[in-house]
Amino acid sequence: MVPHLITALTGPINELEQRLLDATPVIERWFRLEWMEHTPPLYCSADIRNAGFKLAPVDTNLYPDGWHHLSPEMLPLAVQAAQAAIEKICPEARNLLIVPENGKPSSFYLASLQRLREIFRMAGLNVRFGSIDPALGRNVTVALPDGEKLTLEPAQRTRYRIGLKDFDPCTVVLNNDLSAGAPGILEELREQYLLPPLQAGWSVRRKSRHFKCYEGVSKRFGKLIGIDPWLIAPLFASCGEIDIHEPSGDECLRSNVDALLTKIRRKYKEYGIAEKPFVIVKDDHGTHGMGIMTVRDVKDLDRPSRPPMQDKAGAVPRGEVIIQEGVLTRERIHDAVAEPVVYMIDRYVVGGFYRVHADRAEDENLNAPGAKFVPLAFAAAQLPRPGVKAGASAPNRFYMYGVIGRLALVAASYELEATDPEMQDEG
Amino acid sequence: MVPHLITALTGPINELEQRLLDATPVIERWFRLEWMEHTPPLYCSADIRNAGFKLAPVDTNLYPDGWHHLSPEMLPLAVQAAQAAIEKICPEARNLLIVPENGKPSSFYLASLQRLREIFRMAGLNVRFGSIDPALGRNVTVALPDGEKLTLEPAQRTRYRIGLKDFDPCTVVLNNDLSAGAPGILEELREQYLLPPLQAGWSVRRKSRHFKCYEGVSKRFGKLIGIDPWLIAPLFASCGEIDIHEPSGDECLRSNVDALLTKIRRKYKEYGIAEKPFVIVKDDHGTHGMGIMTVRDVKDLDRPSRPPMQDKAGAVPRGEVIIQEGVLTRERIHDAVAEPVVYMIDRYVVGGFYRVHADRAEDENLNAPGAKFVPLAFAAAQLPRPGVKAGASAPNRFYMYGVIGRLALVAASYELEATDPEMQDEG
Repeated sequence: MVPHLITALTGPINELEQRLLDATPVIERWFRLEWMEHTPPLYCSADIRNAGFKLAPVDTNLYPDGWHHLSPEMLPLAVQAAQAAIEKICPEARNLLIVPENGKPSSFYLASLQRLREIFRMAGLNVRFGSIDPALGRNVTVALPDGEKLTLEPAQRTRYRIGLKDFDPCTVVLNNDLSAGAPGILEELREQYLLPPLQAGWSVRRKSRHFKCYEGVSKRFGKLIGIDPWLIAPLFASCGEIDIHEPSGDECLRSNVDALLTKIRRKYKEYGIAEKPFVIVKDDHGTHGMGIMTVRDVKDLDRPSRPPMQDKAGAVPRGEVIIQEGVLTRERIHDAVAEPVVYMIDRYVVGGFYRVHADRAEDENLNAPGAKFVPLAFAAAQLPRPGVKAGASAPNRFYMYGVIGRLALVAASYELEATDPEMQDEG
Repeated sequence: MVPHLITALTGPINELEQRLLDATPVIERWFRLEWMEHTPPLYCSADIRNAGFKLAPVDTNLYPDGWHHLSPEMLPLAVQAAQAAIEKICPEARNLLIVPENGKPSSFYLASLQRLREIFRMAGLNVRFGSIDPALGRNVTVALPDGEKLTLEPAQRTRYRIGLKDFDPCTVVLNNDLSAGAPGILEELREQYLLPPLQAGWSVRRKSRHFKCYEGVSKRFGKLIGIDPWLIAPLFASCGEIDIHEPSGDECLRSNVDALLTKIRRKYKEYGIAEKPFVIVKDDHGTHGMGIMTVRDVKDLDRPSRPPMQDKAGAVPRGEVIIQEGVLTRERIHDAVAEPVVYMIDRYVVGGFYRVHADRAEDENLNAPGAKFVPLAFAAAQLPRPGVKAGASAPNRFYMYGVIGRLALVAASYELEATDPEMQDEG
């Protein structure tokens, strides 16, 4: 089930890999101690780029879809992790409500919802879908390709709870990134667990905050195992609210792009890397990989050559951008550029897949129309093989991906604490 | 990976199956609440017999071997469960010591130890084997078939700890059933976690106590889902210390066998079961399936036709016996009689296999020389398929096995509480 990956990893990455494998007990212990102090988000997916000399997360999704791209063999692992999560959150639970994205669901998204329902059902819960889309006036039932059905029902609000007509859930799972802002129907659910919490939605969340948290995590982790944190973290900068279509907005962008490219160039020189540095400019709270620009030189920003950074679902909402160090991906499946996406539930890696794009280069965003997905059988694969020398077999690499994915997960937990209104009140 | 099973299940079992499947959320909730009050043993395996009309555990092992019979696909599930266990027990752990059985390990047992080491290694721990066999004077390294090595080292005792020369573990995992009694080297380990605890060894443990606890668990569970607990529990009786080779010892045995056969006959009549009742007489603290006798009629006990109930590894240690309702097994693999064995780590079902014996009948013990093992791929299989009607597909059955296995696990946790010296002091 593990696809053959044409990796060309030489030099530093194998050192890094060996370092991670040798430090496995130290690393796992570190994660255990982190989770004693911090609460992981209910679920999370991390896009990871392996440049050979460097391995880092480039995007962390707190409302993952694409669950159906995990190989079916991984289902028991996801179920077990979901059981562990439910045990902690709401052991007395019978019912769980999933709040899906607004709008008419695509067949892709329906398949993902179906898999998510299967995970929580198999964990032993009654699962139903409560839509918060104001346009959904009544139940809508969709027949799925395998003959199963999926019904979206309008969520109903009572004083401190949300539910369906005859369905009172203990836990409400958000699978809606709240791009349009947090709706009132989800606020002040004092008697229920809303997971992930409201502040994980894009109305509050910023990629720059996440990567700031990740930077801190990577520094501590780098110290733990004795590596330069740059090897596992992308450099970044952010501009506040700018209008990149106006010359005034350009200034912040240009100076940051230039400074970041210089920093990367210095790092490449330090490590003897003969690659061309690049940065990725993207919406600081955008989603779905829309409006993402690769910039290799500050001149690329000169209009009119610059492609409009515009979300295909509408204009960039507020014009906040993050400028992130571009991380090459050296992973390839059948000659197409690929990047691993690691899925986690609670504190556990439960699977992953490769996002593959035949029309993109290794320094471009792959999360774009035309991407294909290849399930990764993580069986024994996201796990270290202590008896097996690094580099001798492909599976070793997945342990690293699982470590980097979980570092992003730790960063997400810090991020959610930093934006938790209740913690703010206390602080 | 799931072997084709020639099952002939008709009538009541499908009702039971449907009842269990329909009650999945209720059942899973019940387990969650049980684990809030009670601590599962670190690991456990349960031998399960499916008679069609009845499904019950017949033996619960708190020091399971046979780990290598679990399909490799199940490894991540076992690792995740081990991670969850370690998190609770000793999150700051780096090192784990496994205490294996005394004596020269068979190739079977070595393979099991290797797999057990793999599970805890992959969970991120340094794992070594500390033998408490007084005959082991120095390190013994064995080369395993796959080229790996396994070293047994003599365990060393300090004031309140056990370890190896340069290895100080936080957790000590017992994989030694202490048939010969609890050795001093394992007593008063005040600064470490010994799992399962000393009282799980056969010097303290009694099958009759386990099944007394199981009886209580099955009654509460039966009430929960509205079934006669007899459908999931074997009746039993026990004699204290008797010498079955003396006529005086026979009396207790005969009267109990007779009474139990009468009880079973009554139950068979109640359910219209046209089978011949039988009981199993076995050592109340024996192990490894030695000295197990099927008795279909009290006359079977008349010597000299009675086979000597003698452990091949030595005489029956103290002559305490349990007389247990025999449960037919209707599972077959390629015409050979089979029974599922469910493996658990912490509170999770992590896999299982079929024990198959070509020379045994469906009313005989299969745990005997000549038994073969067929791994069960539990992938999506130990889990309920709520969309799938019971009886329509084989996988449904495995959810039941996972439920029954976990009921035995709950009973084991009660049993260990009942014999915990510290709880005794408090009580």
